[in-house]
Amino acid sequence: MDISKYLAGTKLNPLAKEPLYLQLANLIEVKIKNHEIQPGTKLPPERELASLLDVSRTTTINAYRHLEHRGFVKTRVGSGTYVSDPLAEMGSERPGIPWPQLFIPYNQSPFSSILRELVANPLGLESISLGTGMPDPKLYPLKIFQSLMESELNALNLADLGYIPTEGYTPLRQTLAVYLRNKGINVTAENVMILSGAQQGLYLITKTILVPGDYVVVESPTYIGAIQQFQNAGARLLTLPCSEHFPLALLEDYLIRYRPKLLYLIPTFKNPSGRVIPEHQRRELLQLAARHRLVILEDDPYSELYYQDAPPPSLKALDNYDGVAYLGTFSKILFPGLRTGFIAANPSLINRLALEKQYVDLHSNNLTQWLVQLFLEQGNLSDHLAMVRKEYKKRRDTLVRVTQRLCGDNLTFLPPQGGFYLWCRLTKNTSSTKLLHEATKNGISFVPGQAFYPTLEGDQELRLCFATHDETVLIEGVKRLAKSFSQIHKKGKYTGSAISSSVHPII
Amino acid sequence: MDISKYLAGTKLNPLAKEPLYLQLANLIEVKIKNHEIQPGTKLPPERELASLLDVSRTTTINAYRHLEHRGFVKTRVGSGTYVSDPLAEMGSERPGIPWPQLFIPYNQSPFSSILRELVANPLGLESISLGTGMPDPKLYPLKIFQSLMESELNALNLADLGYIPTEGYTPLRQTLAVYLRNKGINVTAENVMILSGAQQGLYLITKTILVPGDYVVVESPTYIGAIQQFQNAGARLLTLPCSEHFPLALLEDYLIRYRPKLLYLIPTFKNPSGRVIPEHQRRELLQLAARHRLVILEDDPYSELYYQDAPPPSLKALDNYDGVAYLGTFSKILFPGLRTGFIAANPSLINRLALEKQYVDLHSNNLTQWLVQLFLEQGNLSDHLAMVRKEYKKRRDTLVRVTQRLCGDNLTFLPPQGGFYLWCRLTKNTSSTKLLHEATKNGISFVPGQAFYPTLEGDQELRLCFATHDETVLIEGVKRLAKSFSQIHKKGKYTGSAISSSVHPII
Repeated sequence: MDISKYLAGTKLNPLAKEPLYLQLANLIEVKIKNHEIQPGTKLPPERELASLLDVSRTTTINAYRHLEHRGFVKTRVGSGTYVSDPLAEMGSERPGIPWPQLFIPYNQSPFSSILRELVANPLGLESISLGTGMPDPKLYPLKIFQSLMESELNALNLADLGYIPTEGYTPLRQTLAVYLRNKGINVTAENVMILSGAQQGLYLITKTILVPGDYVVVESPTYIGAIQQFQNAGARLLTLPCSEHFPLALLEDYLIRYRPKLLYLIPTFKNPSGRVIPEHQRRELLQLAARHRLVILEDDPYSELYYQDAPPPSLKALDNYDGVAYLGTFSKILFPGLRTGFIAANPSLINRLALEKQYVDLHSNNLTQWLVQLFLEQGNLSDHLAMVRKEYKKRRDTLVRVTQRLCGDNLTFLPPQGGFYLWCRLTKNTSSTKLLHEATKNGISFVPGQAFYPTLEGDQELRLCFATHDETVLIEGVKRLAKSFSQIHKKGKYTGSAISSSVHPII
Repeated sequence: MDISKYLAGTKLNPLAKEPLYLQLANLIEVKIKNHEIQPGTKLPPERELASLLDVSRTTTINAYRHLEHRGFVKTRVGSGTYVSDPLAEMGSERPGIPWPQLFIPYNQSPFSSILRELVANPLGLESISLGTGMPDPKLYPLKIFQSLMESELNALNLADLGYIPTEGYTPLRQTLAVYLRNKGINVTAENVMILSGAQQGLYLITKTILVPGDYVVVESPTYIGAIQQFQNAGARLLTLPCSEHFPLALLEDYLIRYRPKLLYLIPTFKNPSGRVIPEHQRRELLQLAARHRLVILEDDPYSELYYQDAPPPSLKALDNYDGVAYLGTFSKILFPGLRTGFIAANPSLINRLALEKQYVDLHSNNLTQWLVQLFLEQGNLSDHLAMVRKEYKKRRDTLVRVTQRLCGDNLTFLPPQGGFYLWCRLTKNTSSTKLLHEATKNGISFVPGQAFYPTLEGDQELRLCFATHDETVLIEGVKRLAKSFSQIHKKGKYTGSAISSSVHPII
């Protein structure tokens, strides 16, 4: 780069207050700062520059000295004057992008990585995981999906595998509306939006309704993914303790004092406690919610998985103030890899969620939307549900029986009527995180109770999932758990005496 | 509800300064406000309450009067005193949830709904859409996917259809790393994350790097979905005009003056202009970017779709400061319904994006991840690409030829070397939105130029997609377009004289 050209047109003003050398230095400084003259460039010799600009050599010498003093140039003896290269002076390596420093801060709660870990390590090869809420892969109805691909692909309108509306594949929305009406939920296709998993519904609702500082009411314990979602949005959580009677008075107190934006509930076979809110309490809850214009997000992944009587109608089915948004999913009843969930709600909410979803992924996967639609339309769901209910019932019975027999001294529980989980309370003041540490070594894992609380409660509780493994594996798993209990007691890691009379089982 | 019980324990203090009737009224008022006494409840008759609390009847009468005066109770003649029901008084209908008022404001830009509309109405039955950037459904390699389902499902590890790591199905990440290395991009699986479409990459980068007010540099015109994504995040857009030479000096000026957080680019067969940044300009750009630690998001949906020479290496392949995040997708080369895209970048960026993605959808659809992996691994991609390149080349040639012949008086364009689009400039001062209005009536649609500009420019430009339809349909489409031109001129909707000498074609 011949820098002389750059400087040739420079006009200095001998009449200005500022001395000529300073005018010149400032001009060069500006060009360096604006990157018009690059670091490393050799400047013209003082004599040459002086004749170029028609000024005295003293002026150019003083200008270069001034620039050197300010750190913009360097004189190399016998070589000349060069524009400084701050990078070269920092070391030989050019620094790359400091990636981690560019990110918007991410607030990790003590248990915020648990969900991801559970998802990342669902089924260790040697270890038995009763952790993740994962349906048994051996029960996935893949043969049906395979034969749908074989028999129906030719009839497919190929454009349905192009871009489709954000709200979802229309035939699936229609089929789901029928499915929901059969469950007493009064909706049409325009009330239904397809989601890339129910998790996405939590995300979109959070994005469209909550701002930092808003209050959200949740049960405690509840689904870890919901806790994290709300906390990540900067919401404050108000908790309703798990008890036999839904704590309406406490909820009303919250409504009056804090004006929460949302109540998040899993009314049927809750995760993790397995409990069901009885119908009359649902009605009372809805009356209260209607009076306070409280928006309820009803998360319902488990209601089809009942092992005795069918559960009461959903909140959405009883909703007479149009305040309930209902989340459903096929992850637990078919398989998670479909990533197909849905939300049923007021059309203006659906519309707003769709505007948001467009940014997130344009629309959900249509290949699986098409497959799920065919699966439902051709009437495969009820047979499949009958099969998995029968199988999971056996597993629940086995886990309940064996856990009672082998670990009954160490924990108490209430057998769940449906869903995936046995929620246990440790009776001997044992810490479930410490127990997990021991259990992992024995090749058995579970989710410690703390994961399900927005606070730091729950260290004497734990969740066992009975859906993932068959009875043989469940029995082996409980044996390993029993072994872990006896080891933890031998090592003296169990810190309290038996105080079972004062420890309340989760009922 | 027997309210007497509620009031029975009430203690009034005859020695207090406050008269007894006021003490009583205030007590009842608090209970009403706290919803301990519900609207509509009948209060005890004055005489009964007086004897219950052991006060005079005057006290209870005055208390009720005071409450009625303050609006908390109503006296119904011959019936008694009732707690007021503000809802009942508002009208007979109980108001529902005012849904639209609960949502966080959504700022719709003039063209923000275009993408959604295009997606929602991709292929009208009678109308010919040259709008959406949709590959031709007839070219989707569905037979291959069908046979993969048939032949490979038995070999599938079923757990791979359960929950998997947020970053994606590991074999697909590995296969993509090989694919990228073959394109000169030096990555391993840990640099690669699977996305639910490339759109999701835009979303996640935006979420993790931008806060409202940040500057982002984009080309102008550019992909509408990117413009919307950044604007929705509250970012300010700095635009680089489309010209033969990439405007490095302007970019540097932006870098110095505004310190933008991100440069978003489609360097190869840009949407909408079809242009390619030559290799030496890519290298210059990367030098500048490295010097300023500028993060570049390279969006590359089209580089495999070249119809003459293969395009130059991607920016990511030339990136020596690890500052480029590379977005890829199978939507244009296979089909959109796969919703499978990916990002290749520094591992700490991948990790941060995964933390964010977990909230959005846990992980992308594994059924299609598994299918795409098999499709790639079994070497189907190169044959498929050869086929679509050949077909799309014919269509480009046809659209170029016919448009030149039938509409050459009305628009100019530069034939693209790859991608999906013919980017046209109207030569007669015609408005492309007005033209679209006319064209739609003739059964032909396109995207008006304004959609691709963050500002309100572009009303004399339009984009035609030649990928969706075969040559016969393209010819018919251009005929309809030509008809629309002549109609618009007849109706006098064309507002200027021929000023083609002063209108620059897009080159």
